[in-house]
Amino acid sequence: MAIQSFIPPQRTLMGPGPSDVSQRVLSALARPTIGHLDPEFITMMDEVKQLLQYAFKTKNENTMAISAPGSAGMEACFVNLITPDDTVVVCRNGVFGARMIENVQRIGAKLVIVDSPWGRAVEPQRLEDTLKAHPQANFVAFVHAETSTGACSDAKSLCEIAKRYQCLTIVDAVTSLGGIELRVDDWGIDAIYSGSQKCLSCVPGISPVSFSEQASEVIQRRSTPVQSWFLDQSLVMGYWSGKGKRAYHHTAPVNSLYALHESLLMLQQEGIENAWHRHQSQHQVLAQGLTELGLNFIVPEAERLPQLNAVYIPQGIDDASVRQMLLQEYNLEIGAGLGEFAGKAWRIGLMGFTARRENVALCLTAMAEALKKHR
Amino acid sequence: MAIQSFIPPQRTLMGPGPSDVSQRVLSALARPTIGHLDPEFITMMDEVKQLLQYAFKTKNENTMAISAPGSAGMEACFVNLITPDDTVVVCRNGVFGARMIENVQRIGAKLVIVDSPWGRAVEPQRLEDTLKAHPQANFVAFVHAETSTGACSDAKSLCEIAKRYQCLTIVDAVTSLGGIELRVDDWGIDAIYSGSQKCLSCVPGISPVSFSEQASEVIQRRSTPVQSWFLDQSLVMGYWSGKGKRAYHHTAPVNSLYALHESLLMLQQEGIENAWHRHQSQHQVLAQGLTELGLNFIVPEAERLPQLNAVYIPQGIDDASVRQMLLQEYNLEIGAGLGEFAGKAWRIGLMGFTARRENVALCLTAMAEALKKHR
Repeated sequence: MAIQSFIPPQRTLMGPGPSDVSQRVLSALARPTIGHLDPEFITMMDEVKQLLQYAFKTKNENTMAISAPGSAGMEACFVNLITPDDTVVVCRNGVFGARMIENVQRIGAKLVIVDSPWGRAVEPQRLEDTLKAHPQANFVAFVHAETSTGACSDAKSLCEIAKRYQCLTIVDAVTSLGGIELRVDDWGIDAIYSGSQKCLSCVPGISPVSFSEQASEVIQRRSTPVQSWFLDQSLVMGYWSGKGKRAYHHTAPVNSLYALHESLLMLQQEGIENAWHRHQSQHQVLAQGLTELGLNFIVPEAERLPQLNAVYIPQGIDDASVRQMLLQEYNLEIGAGLGEFAGKAWRIGLMGFTARRENVALCLTAMAEALKKHR
Repeated sequence: MAIQSFIPPQRTLMGPGPSDVSQRVLSALARPTIGHLDPEFITMMDEVKQLLQYAFKTKNENTMAISAPGSAGMEACFVNLITPDDTVVVCRNGVFGARMIENVQRIGAKLVIVDSPWGRAVEPQRLEDTLKAHPQANFVAFVHAETSTGACSDAKSLCEIAKRYQCLTIVDAVTSLGGIELRVDDWGIDAIYSGSQKCLSCVPGISPVSFSEQASEVIQRRSTPVQSWFLDQSLVMGYWSGKGKRAYHHTAPVNSLYALHESLLMLQQEGIENAWHRHQSQHQVLAQGLTELGLNFIVPEAERLPQLNAVYIPQGIDDASVRQMLLQEYNLEIGAGLGEFAGKAWRIGLMGFTARRENVALCLTAMAEALKKHR
């Protein structure tokens, strides 16, 4: 049969991302494409940078959007900062900490792993003990909001400890940016990356990043080239820099950046503290409802992310069949478990534009129905 | 002043890319986002793969879209196939051949450069002489359509020579795919990458790639991990594979893939040979008009790309002022020179949806006016 134009169904996206993209952002996305060196586009890029500085709560000059998904943002932070001579302490409490480890291994740097249980926050004391035992360590990397488990780590305390041991910090904020408190400058984060498709509710494919002055100096002082040409910040910075002539590096994803601009503008207009509060208050309604349905959270209450609710699948309930029913009958997507929790948990996202009362209501109603049919 | 929603001007894009994106593709782009593991999305990915096989004229199973721009597609081909033990012959006749060299250097492989003059095709005889002199060479890389100069190299002959010397071929088809004849299987291309924003007239940010069976085996047989986690094809293939369960690797740029699907469908509906013919015939009208305006082409006629017309800036004419006038008075973008031709040439694109009679007419009228005002 001949291929037709693709008309996607209208879903409600309550998985681990992408989250629902508002019509306002979709409309921005579809505006006419212009050149990536057009003066109007460059003005817009400057605004994206300002809006990202607002969202990250940073004054970092080196703040921009990587033209690829969050995992490329992760790689950009690691390959630009780290060389085989470095010792990197990576805190692992889920899939994305493990992915950081893969990055360090491919660079060939010395690696020290701090393991915390999946479904729990990274334990600050374990980090401190590790740094004491490895005085040569010069980087600490951890995931702020672990998307695979729904655990929130105390980024402020972890950074404080890292700083006490003269380490630069690399923080994964893919799922945290826009959803929970995050203060890059106040907390002393040196390199941070996020994703467009989580609590910013932009289309997937873009990774906001920011580098502190100290991190930017490390990049400038490198004596060996970064292993990736595409992600080489010393080149990319020439395109995003606000000063003088823009140097062509690659063709920016023009339309996706329109969408990012609009989603960040929506965040600024709402006020980021209000957005954090909205995520928290919708989470409370959802969490209470899920508990009333007899579902148990993986993460203890004090360490829970409001935007990613991981619950155990009840004994005897067929995982795939429930998710399929939700998708087919309610056009509702929830997430499967990942890594250690594959087949054992559901991940219910309440990210960005998705975090609204009507979606919480839909989710609770549909889940109640699906559980009833499957018991 | 408070930042506002960004409303771009409506340009006609006749630079080196992005090209004009049709309303049909923009509408596809703006359809509701769904999950990257949604069964409907996976069906669409399978169709994208089929449509890419059509566009590349290949049966390669390992054909997909990299979730990042063409320069990441280039990097994906190099870092997956090449290790420090390999010897790579890179043909350089412009900026993008030079970028290939940067990729080889960052991998740390042995490098042999075949230089041809900028503005000319790669000389097959020089490649053959080089391969004779370097029997250890096992890869040949070249740019099919050099976007920095408008020169078209004879990909078929270059691949034939490479094969005679038992080399795998890596071909840059960023500007060629959809605009001029290109036959991956018939010509023996082992790894090829393109960009979404040139003759496919999709939004920028996606890079179609394809690997031959032999190239895929090289990737499978690697004993060392690929230096990039994000671009590691052995992992990405698990997500794009048509067989069995999709393995999550990264979040695909869902909406950009809707747009790619639509642009490839438009190409299939037109018929790719018809698209090649359209580029050629519109180019002839444009070339004649530019010549009548007294502009001289950089590239000799037999080696010219129809989709990228590079002409010398006449003596005494201010480059930036002409381009600014075209942009401000006609909303018409043409490209500046790049590399050796910076400040010396204009690059006038006729790519994909841009390659229509009305745009040729606009360009010739506007250029005539601009040249008259600037002489």
